[in-house]
Amino acid sequence: MAISIDLNCDMGESFGAYTIGDDTAMLELITTANVACGFHAGDPSVMRDTILGAKARGVAVGAHPSFMDLYGFGRRRISGERPEDLEAQIIYQIAAIQGMAQALGWPITHVKTHGALGNMAAEDRGLAEVCVRAAQAVDPTLTFVTLPYSELMTAAEAAGLPVACEVFADRTYTDAGALTPRSQPGAVIHDTAHCVDQVLTMVRDGFIPTTGGGKLPVTAATLCMHGDTPGAVTMAAELRRALEAEGIAIAPFRTPGAPA
Amino acid sequence: MAISIDLNCDMGESFGAYTIGDDTAMLELITTANVACGFHAGDPSVMRDTILGAKARGVAVGAHPSFMDLYGFGRRRISGERPEDLEAQIIYQIAAIQGMAQALGWPITHVKTHGALGNMAAEDRGLAEVCVRAAQAVDPTLTFVTLPYSELMTAAEAAGLPVACEVFADRTYTDAGALTPRSQPGAVIHDTAHCVDQVLTMVRDGFIPTTGGGKLPVTAATLCMHGDTPGAVTMAAELRRALEAEGIAIAPFRTPGAPA
Amino acid sequence: MAISIDLNCDMGESFGAYTIGDDTAMLELITTANVACGFHAGDPSVMRDTILGAKARGVAVGAHPSFMDLYGFGRRRISGERPEDLEAQIIYQIAAIQGMAQALGWPITHVKTHGALGNMAAEDRGLAEVCVRAAQAVDPTLTFVTLPYSELMTAAEAAGLPVACEVFADRTYTDAGALTPRSQPGAVIHDTAHCVDQVLTMVRDGFIPTTGGGKLPVTAATLCMHGDTPGAVTMAAELRRALEAEGIAIAPFRTPGAPA
Amino acid sequence: MAISIDLNCDMGESFGAYTIGDDTAMLELITTANVACGFHAGDPSVMRDTILGAKARGVAVGAHPSFMDLYGFGRRRISGERPEDLEAQIIYQIAAIQGMAQALGWPITHVKTHGALGNMAAEDRGLAEVCVRAAQAVDPTLTFVTLPYSELMTAAEAAGLPVACEVFADRTYTDAGALTPRSQPGAVIHDTAHCVDQVLTMVRDGFIPTTGGGKLPVTAATLCMHGDTPGAVTMAAELRRALEAEGIAIAPFRTPGAPA
Repeated sequence: MAISIDLNCDMGESFGAYTIGDDTAMLELITTANVACGFHAGDPSVMRDTILGAKARGVAVGAHPSFMDLYGFGRRRISGERPEDLEAQIIYQIAAIQGMAQALGWPITHVKTHGALGNMAAEDRGLAEVCVRAAQAVDPTLTFVTLPYSELMTAAEAAGLPVACEVFADRTYTDAGALTPRSQPGAVIHDTAHCVDQVLTMVRDGFIPTTGGGKLPVTAATLCMHGDTPGAVTMAAELRRALEAEGIAIAPFRTPGAPA
Repeated sequence: MAISIDLNCDMGESFGAYTIGDDTAMLELITTANVACGFHAGDPSVMRDTILGAKARGVAVGAHPSFMDLYGFGRRRISGERPEDLEAQIIYQIAAIQGMAQALGWPITHVKTHGALGNMAAEDRGLAEVCVRAAQAVDPTLTFVTLPYSELMTAAEAAGLPVACEVFADRTYTDAGALTPRSQPGAVIHDTAHCVDQVLTMVRDGFIPTTGGGKLPVTAATLCMHGDTPGAVTMAAELRRALEAEGIAIAPFRTPGAPA
Repeated sequence: MAISIDLNCDMGESFGAYTIGDDTAMLELITTANVACGFHAGDPSVMRDTILGAKARGVAVGAHPSFMDLYGFGRRRISGERPEDLEAQIIYQIAAIQGMAQALGWPITHVKTHGALGNMAAEDRGLAEVCVRAAQAVDPTLTFVTLPYSELMTAAEAAGLPVACEVFADRTYTDAGALTPRSQPGAVIHDTAHCVDQVLTMVRDGFIPTTGGGKLPVTAATLCMHGDTPGAVTMAAELRRALEAEGIAIAPFRTPGAPA
Repeated sequence: MAISIDLNCDMGESFGAYTIGDDTAMLELITTANVACGFHAGDPSVMRDTILGAKARGVAVGAHPSFMDLYGFGRRRISGERPEDLEAQIIYQIAAIQGMAQALGWPITHVKTHGALGNMAAEDRGLAEVCVRAAQAVDPTLTFVTLPYSELMTAAEAAGLPVACEVFADRTYTDAGALTPRSQPGAVIHDTAHCVDQVLTMVRDGFIPTTGGGKLPVTAATLCMHGDTPGAVTMAAELRRALEAEGIAIAPFRTPGAPA
């Protein structure tokens, strides 16, 4: 049986006169785009163009909601907000892109939280449940993309949402299944061959190798590609070629552009 | 046959710590709420609470899209924007509230443009078509609320959208069917009895009386109530009572909360 | 010798079409206004009008910088920001109001941090130093208004800034000199006579009574008045009258409108 | 006597995670930087870094105020605003950068309006006076940089502000002394030799050649360099070299970093 993995990337993060990332090039390499919803990045025109660019290439699109923080690009941690306010913000964002994607004939397939919101929700069950409730309120058939071994994963499964496990080729994992913090040595894998090995282990063998030598079971559905780092396109292309050379098929985790 | 008119009011224009208008009181008096979409006013929590407040009272809700201008409350005229950018902004706003309203079990029934966007589009066919295309892209069954004798009306009818004509009780009309500019004497009718007379003329007799003595045919569907002026609630209550005393039924122009 | 205290209040927090607080009434009661700088609230016109209103009544004005968070009114805790970025934001805010106040002939006398920024900096020495460095960079002669027994106080004194200790009439204090968190019972003093007693103790006797029965020395310079709670003006007027009845003079902690 | 011209460029227009223009490279080529003030672009950190970069190279800095329009990069025309509100906005922006530049030991020398604000004010005397009053309110010794034969020029001179005439190497001029609109053929001069010729004519001979064959007297103080177009740095370097080869000295119109 062929081994297959989806490649996802955050997209549509330009704003007004500002451009970030080379979305056109990345869209040629990936199978799923997480599209900014205007809160940490993106604007309605960028959102439309990103969806149309994805549609033209058969790339799946999804909502990439965030804290309301354009200045901080959604990377700042914001607390002290009522859960119901945050839930409304996430509903608003998913609804906005869902409606626009529908209007463009290329419905969204999934939701993936962005930046600090995603990081905080991965560790905080209450926050995770806010994110999950928001996705479910808009459309309970949307796939919820999340790190395994996280509160988001637990909350999404408890709520009965379809879940797609996201894994990283270039990040190591703690024994608890979390990403090794970037502040620690060995957090990032720089060697492509090593990245490919890790993907094979996760996708073919079905487990995450941890820094303590453990093996955590995983059903890897999608691989996170970085889009806004220097050399991002080159690295993404290299990784994709290496995966294909190993016989791994690159395919979306869900039929793009189809209603759930 | 009973004469009937809808009463609509702009709502959900509070933002964060800021409150504007007495939405709770107005919701008891009106039959249709035009809900701010976060561009000139409103935020996701306010939007949710407004929709829920309307649902609890059987009041219809709709999108009230605007220029992206929180500081100016959507009242500043903005030009020099590409039509496709403005169209995307309007699509985004309608989609956001449509999705949220759907999630709350109280679907939107209509679209009414706000402030400077509405005023400019009433006079500019190109801009009117942008607004109409945006509404149509999200959902061609949504009712388009517009002044009669305006480019918005013409564009909406040309596009085949369901249209609801909005009239004013307290504004006089030019011979061309436009509102007399507020800068001119006699633009505003201050006497309630006079307001009721004008509504009767428009709703029962089917024409708009103009300042030049003309009579312009009109199918009045909804009456614009002001929500954020001093004494707004009192004036709205008085007008409603006066209309009911004349035997005019107050009813939404379209079944609230029902999909189109 | 006459006992004297300054009364300060946050002001100028309206924004665009939104009004918050009754600044005109409060300006009649207070001696020092902390003016929002446009990041958590306020806009340039509101800032100008607030400064002019203060000038007309001889009320001192100062900068009230905050996190960049209009939606959250500066009350949300934001972290993950580089200290130098936050410092630049505070410098920008103080500079903006300093220049405008100078242009209006009523120079600012002080700086007081707002909301979550102030709360976080009171407990975090690093953050406190960022705030202090920013004030010092713009003008080292500005008085730094801060709670006593806080990291802000320590940092301001270490930097050699003039400091004005702010006390509360209606809040109790922990044995460490911090405000009892509002989440705890007994955090707020509702009885005006009790409030006046506490002010007398702090201003005349020179110590803060703590919930554990302790007495912490304090040189109280200014009393924080609330401006945006229901009944704020009435309560402020009552407290002011009660203080005056006890022979306490109400006077600014520093000559208003005079360069440092 | 040596002929000398200043080279100015808009700078500091990055925002948060977004970068626009290659400011570091441009700072090596120019003598005066117009620094965004956070309304159309820029943020406090970008402002600080831009001022420090200019200071390190002896480049003069000034305020580059705009309409409040981050999304539109200050290029959208905004109307329907009260003049006193716009004036307050411009005062706020100039004050913010003036105070920050002062804190960094590199005081601003001038004010130049940005984008749509500048374009509209060039044609509208009332708007021009708003801009001039704002600059004057903050500091009447600041040099006002403006196109000649514009309402801004007239207003600035009438107010007694020091004025620096800005000219373009690569734009043609109408017989009225305005820039030929970009929508018209022949608006832009693409040939560097031709650009140098025009500069020589304006700087050495003291007149503007117009498309109708006229010669309008001008005292050219500064040449506008474009910083955010493709190839901007290369073109700027080429033009600078060509001017120097013709014996034109490149020098700021006013001593950088010195109080007025």
